[in-house]
Amino acid sequence: MSVAYLNGRYLPLDEARISPLDRGFLFAEGIYEVAAVIDGALVDSASHLARLERSTAAIGIALPIGLDRVEAVQTELVRRNSLTEGLVYLQVTRGADVTRDFIAPDGLAPTLFLFVQGRALLDVPAVRDGIAVATMPDLRWKRRDIKSTGLLAQAMAKQAARNAGAQEAWMVEDGFVTEGASSTAFIVTDEGIVTRPYSQAVLAGCTGAALSALAGDSGLAVVHRPFTVAEAQAAGEAFVTSASTLCLPVVRIDGRPVGDGRPGPVARRMRALYIDFARRTGTR
Amino acid sequence: MSVAYLNGRYLPLDEARISPLDRGFLFAEGIYEVAAVIDGALVDSASHLARLERSTAAIGIALPIGLDRVEAVQTELVRRNSLTEGLVYLQVTRGADVTRDFIAPDGLAPTLFLFVQGRALLDVPAVRDGIAVATMPDLRWKRRDIKSTGLLAQAMAKQAARNAGAQEAWMVEDGFVTEGASSTAFIVTDEGIVTRPYSQAVLAGCTGAALSALAGDSGLAVVHRPFTVAEAQAAGEAFVTSASTLCLPVVRIDGRPVGDGRPGPVARRMRALYIDFARRTGTR
Repeated sequence: MSVAYLNGRYLPLDEARISPLDRGFLFAEGIYEVAAVIDGALVDSASHLARLERSTAAIGIALPIGLDRVEAVQTELVRRNSLTEGLVYLQVTRGADVTRDFIAPDGLAPTLFLFVQGRALLDVPAVRDGIAVATMPDLRWKRRDIKSTGLLAQAMAKQAARNAGAQEAWMVEDGFVTEGASSTAFIVTDEGIVTRPYSQAVLAGCTGAALSALAGDSGLAVVHRPFTVAEAQAAGEAFVTSASTLCLPVVRIDGRPVGDGRPGPVARRMRALYIDFARRTGTR
Repeated sequence: MSVAYLNGRYLPLDEARISPLDRGFLFAEGIYEVAAVIDGALVDSASHLARLERSTAAIGIALPIGLDRVEAVQTELVRRNSLTEGLVYLQVTRGADVTRDFIAPDGLAPTLFLFVQGRALLDVPAVRDGIAVATMPDLRWKRRDIKSTGLLAQAMAKQAARNAGAQEAWMVEDGFVTEGASSTAFIVTDEGIVTRPYSQAVLAGCTGAALSALAGDSGLAVVHRPFTVAEAQAAGEAFVTSASTLCLPVVRIDGRPVGDGRPGPVARRMRALYIDFARRTGTR
């Protein structure tokens, strides 16, 4: 059993316990982050920590420890678990109190929980095979820029996608793709790489942002605009980015092949650029 | 400290503990119900249990015990805590597992948690003073008919309402009031009592439904249609219903008085009808 961190203590994950009065449990009043670990180093850590700070500020949760200390806990968990490849999960909630009032009392001690998952990120079959996505109505709330633990809509979309034989759901609102249930959506057209601009309608994906910058640096145009499902199906390529998938080619959308139905060169290049970036800039 | 129930056990509330891997904590994959207790009896229990069954079915969580057994736990908690007036809170989640995958593995044991809160429901100042409401954009997800624990938008709306000097938020979408952050919204016009029809845009309020039936029985017309904030401000009366407020008059909306700015006769009559119903039909 792996070592986790809960409110200042390192402990076996299966011994970690919280009160069911925690407002993360009662109200989904919590924020989370997932950071990749490659070669034993945190990937793009500053970006994830900055988003953590934005999300917690947006709902008025004060992190119980500073961001530098959060990163120290993350790297300590990587070390204690001898993690070379996988994910570090972090969640902070407003804490527990007995009132169960929609308005939290002042002065609650936030709950901070981290654990790790060993998992292959680099050598996965989807790099060669690509993934299928199924489109779903976007049922989520309107502040998707806040990385909250209110993830039921995403879980339902992922389950519906699996039922449709797909590995990811692309959520659609007002005729346009917002994003994946747990990833950022990209298509490749004559304009270059197309992805939705940041707004309250989507999460500002750390991996997608880094990848967009890398693409720009390498001379590929990145266009931030919404796109439709039909555009995506007619695109030369499509791909998704996230901390856990890094960058994976999308080869089918609602059963229709994208391009020739096989992973394409842009997605392959983007993935290579991102992995190179991750290795150059990892935090130990 | 009161006695709670967690997964088959009665225990002191402050000793109740769950794993932070619980999907209710990680994904807000949970359903809740709040039932009022008056004179030591559960109010409108069958209606709350039916909604619990609908909500859990909608997200594919199997209750670990039957509805009759759930009610027996509720009445046992009332008994053990000598609760005469207050609330019984119930939450069921998909349970805990180590994968933290958006798609839950099969065969998880759901988590079932109940606790009680002693609280005055009948003799509260708001009956005489009324409450103020502030309107807010409805930021919630699109399946509000499912009583999920993803309540961050509601908590934010309640906090914003308090900051505006109000006791409840009325959420507004496409120009119409959907409902209160934790209540059903009613106005009184020449047509009768007006409230929004049930759909995925609102929760089917148990208290509001019972009250609508009582109103109909007593000869008051109940019209199910959406209404605007301006209509509400121009209405003769307004009120809210919920398990915890029963029925309370709304005397100000965004600072403007409703009617003469004092609790009106229809809200008073509705509250009396509901309390009479609660006393006639309570479950011990």
